[in-house]
Amino acid sequence: MSLDDSGYSGLVLEKLSLSKIQVGDTISITKDGEEFTGVLMPRSQVGSDAVHIIIKLDSGYNIGLRLNQESTIHRIKGGARKRTTKVEEFMEKKNLPRVSILSTGGTIASKVDYRTGAVNPALSAQDLYDTVPELRNYANVHAKVIMSVLSENILPADWTKIAHSVASEIKTGTDGVVIAHGTDTLGFTSAALSFALQNLPVPVVLVGSQRSSDRPSSDAAMNLIGAVNLATKADAAEVMVLMHAETGDSFLHAHRGTRVRKLHTSRRDAFQSVNEYPLFKINEVDVQELYPPIQRRNPERKIKLKPKFEEKVALVKTFPGIEGILVENLIDSEYRGIVIEGTGLGHTPDSLQQSIKKAIDAGIIVIMTSQCIFGRTDMNVYRSGVELLDIGVVSCEDMLPETALVKLMWVLANSKDSATAKDLLLTPLAGEIDMRSEEPDYIKGLGES
Amino acid sequence: MSLDDSGYSGLVLEKLSLSKIQVGDTISITKDGEEFTGVLMPRSQVGSDAVHIIIKLDSGYNIGLRLNQESTIHRIKGGARKRTTKVEEFMEKKNLPRVSILSTGGTIASKVDYRTGAVNPALSAQDLYDTVPELRNYANVHAKVIMSVLSENILPADWTKIAHSVASEIKTGTDGVVIAHGTDTLGFTSAALSFALQNLPVPVVLVGSQRSSDRPSSDAAMNLIGAVNLATKADAAEVMVLMHAETGDSFLHAHRGTRVRKLHTSRRDAFQSVNEYPLFKINEVDVQELYPPIQRRNPERKIKLKPKFEEKVALVKTFPGIEGILVENLIDSEYRGIVIEGTGLGHTPDSLQQSIKKAIDAGIIVIMTSQCIFGRTDMNVYRSGVELLDIGVVSCEDMLPETALVKLMWVLANSKDSATAKDLLLTPLAGEIDMRSEEPDYIKGLGES
Repeated sequence: MSLDDSGYSGLVLEKLSLSKIQVGDTISITKDGEEFTGVLMPRSQVGSDAVHIIIKLDSGYNIGLRLNQESTIHRIKGGARKRTTKVEEFMEKKNLPRVSILSTGGTIASKVDYRTGAVNPALSAQDLYDTVPELRNYANVHAKVIMSVLSENILPADWTKIAHSVASEIKTGTDGVVIAHGTDTLGFTSAALSFALQNLPVPVVLVGSQRSSDRPSSDAAMNLIGAVNLATKADAAEVMVLMHAETGDSFLHAHRGTRVRKLHTSRRDAFQSVNEYPLFKINEVDVQELYPPIQRRNPERKIKLKPKFEEKVALVKTFPGIEGILVENLIDSEYRGIVIEGTGLGHTPDSLQQSIKKAIDAGIIVIMTSQCIFGRTDMNVYRSGVELLDIGVVSCEDMLPETALVKLMWVLANSKDSATAKDLLLTPLAGEIDMRSEEPDYIKGLGES
Repeated sequence: MSLDDSGYSGLVLEKLSLSKIQVGDTISITKDGEEFTGVLMPRSQVGSDAVHIIIKLDSGYNIGLRLNQESTIHRIKGGARKRTTKVEEFMEKKNLPRVSILSTGGTIASKVDYRTGAVNPALSAQDLYDTVPELRNYANVHAKVIMSVLSENILPADWTKIAHSVASEIKTGTDGVVIAHGTDTLGFTSAALSFALQNLPVPVVLVGSQRSSDRPSSDAAMNLIGAVNLATKADAAEVMVLMHAETGDSFLHAHRGTRVRKLHTSRRDAFQSVNEYPLFKINEVDVQELYPPIQRRNPERKIKLKPKFEEKVALVKTFPGIEGILVENLIDSEYRGIVIEGTGLGHTPDSLQQSIKKAIDAGIIVIMTSQCIFGRTDMNVYRSGVELLDIGVVSCEDMLPETALVKLMWVLANSKDSATAKDLLLTPLAGEIDMRSEEPDYIKGLGES
C-alpha cells in the first residue's frame, strides 16, 4: 500500500517518505528518548491529524504516537522487534479521567480494510480507539467489544447484555461509559438502557456515526471524541445519545436517551430530541450544559440494575383500512403488550375498536402513541379517543412511540401485575414522559442550533 | 345568548347593542338600499371582523352581510319575515372566480352549538362558508357535504368517493376545488387523490384545522380563506394541502399532496413537507409561488379519473424483536401488498428475512420505506439491505411511508400484473418520488419559515 492511500499527511508523511517506508513495514520510532517498534498501520483519513503515527506492537495492540520535529523513524528490514514500554504503562496517564468504551458494532465500529477495500464492521473498540489517537489527550480508555452487530439486529436480549456490561464497568469506578452502536436502532437501545440502568453515578453515552470512518465525510472520529469528553466531563448521570448537531463539523448535541429519534436516513445530524431540547452542546473539548434539570454525577451513588425486557410486545402503526385481524393475530400469538401508533391526538379507525377490546379483555396491555412523532396524545378531545380510553387503552402523553414500546417491554418484565405495570407506564422514570399539558414549541428546534 | 358571547365586535356590536338585539332575534337589516330579514346568528370569534353580520334566512341559508356606517338594524318582534333577494342571486358575484368546497368532516367542519356548548362535527359546507363571510369577497362558493367523518375513519373506499366528487365538480368548470377534511389522515387522502386525479386542469386543495372554530385559537377561518384563494388564484393544477406555516396567524403553506405529513399532534403548523419544500406561501389574499416545478393550471386539460384502491395492503413498522409471524399472518390473510417501515436506510432485523421471502414467494409485493421519515432508503450500503433487495423487496427511495402505502394500494388496483405494478411504483406520477441521489437538506426546513 503506497503512502498516498495511507491516510498520513504533514509531518508524519514527510518523515515516512524520507525513509521510504510503506504501510505494513516494521519500523522503529524514537521519540523523547524512548524507542517504539512495530508495524506501520494506515490511518483513517478523517479525524486524522498530521502528527500522529500508528503502529501495531508485538502484543497485538495498536498505539498512536505523537511525533515532533525531533522524532526519528527507521525502517527495520526483518529485524528483531523490540518493545521498550509496556502497553498498559504507555496508555495510562495520570491526571486524566477514565472512560470505558464498549463496542456493539455498527458504522462507528466499521473501517475500511486497507488490503481489500471492503468496509469491515468488526472493528474492535481498541481499534476504534487507535484510529483516533487524539482520545489519549482526554482520557485513559478501557475498551471492550461486547458484541459486533449491525443495530437493525439488536434484540431486547442484547439490551440486557449491554446493561450488564455497563454496570460492570461502572462498578470498576470508571468516570463515564461510552457505547459505540449502530444508528438504526440507537434510539431504542438508549431508551432501554435508560430504564435498565437506574440510579446512575456517571454518564452513559451512546454514540454512532452516519458515515463509516473510511469516508471523507465520516462523523465517527468527532462523535467519539465528543462522547469521551461528555462521558468524562459532564456533570450528569443519565443515559444520553451523542451525535452531530448539524451537517458540518462544528458541534454535537447530547440528547436524553428516552427523547431521541433518528429522523433522517443519512444526514450526520439525523438524531433529534423530540418534545424536549438537547441536554448538552459539545465540541471536541467543551461540554456546555443547555437544558437542565439533569440528574447530576455522583460517584457515591450505587447503580441499580433492572435489565429484563418482555419480548412479547408489538408496535402497530395504524393506517386507513387497517383490519382488526392485525391486532387479533397478536392475541393468538400470546403477546402481552401492544403499542398502537395511532393518528393525531391518539385515534384509531372505529373498525379497530372491537379487536382492541378483545386484546384488553385477554389481559394484554394496549397503549396509545401518535404517528405524528411530535406532540402529545390527548384522548379526551374527540369521541374516537374517549371510546378507546373507556375500553382501557392507556394514553402515553408525550412519550415517543419507540420509547413507549421499550418501556412497555420493561414494565411488563418488572411488574408483579397489570395494575402496577400501568402505573409504572405513566410514572416518569428517566425523563421519558411529562404529564404537563402545556409545552414549548419543540418542533421549531428540529434541525436548528 | 347575550351579545358578549355572540362573537360580534366593533361596528356590528355597536349597532346590535343600540337596538338591544340578541342572538336568535329576528331582525331586519337595511344596507345600500336593500333590506334583508332573518334570525341573528352568532359568529365564530376567530376569523371574525367587526363589519360582518350573519343572519339565517327563511330559506335556511345563512348569509353574511358587510355593514357600513349607514346600515341600519331593526328588531322585528314576531313580525312577518320578508325576503327581498333570492339567495342564489345574492351569492353569485360577477368577476369573481368559482370555487367548489366539498366537506368530508373533521375539525374544520365542526362548530360549537351555541345552545348546548357542544362541538358539533356535522357542520355543512354551507355553514362552513357562512361562518366565514369574508369568503364572498374572493369567490363564488359552491358548497357540498359529501360525507361527515372524523378522518381517522376515512377508508380507501372514501378516497374513491371523494375522487368522484372532485371530478364531478371539475367537469362543471369550477376554477378550483377545496376539500375540508380532518387532519388525522389528511396526508393519506391527499396522496390518494394525487394518484386518483390525473391530468388535473385546476388545483385541488385539501384543508383542515387543528383547533375547532369555537376555540379562540382556531385556525379554521384563516385556513379556509387561504384554501379558497389558493384554489382560485394559484397557477397550479396539483393536489395540495394547505395549513398554517407557523404557530401564529401570519401565513400558510401549500404542500404537495404526496409530500406532506402531520408531524405534530396539536400545533397549527403540524403539517410539513418532507423531502421537499412547500410549493406556495399564502396569506389571506396573496398567493406566492415558492418552489417550482409545479404542474400549471390549464382549464382545457381533461381530467383522468383513476379512483380505485386495493384495500389488502398493510403497513408494518419494524422494531427490535419483531417476529416473522407478523408478516406471515398477512400472507394467511391474503394481503396483496406490504409496506415495511424499516430502520435507517431501509433495513429489517435478519429474523424477518425468511418471512418476507415467503410473502414475496406468495406473490405479495413488499416495498421498503424508512421510519426515519426524512431522507431516502438506500439498500445497497449494508448487507441487510442488499439481502432484502436480492429477495425482491422494492426500495421506495425518498417516498414517505404513508405515500408509499397509498401508492401501493393504487398501483395494485391499476396494474394488470405484478411487473407493471413494480414499474409504476418507482415511476414518478405526482411528485411523490425523486430518484436523484443528491438532495438538499430538507430537515432544516422543518418548522422554519
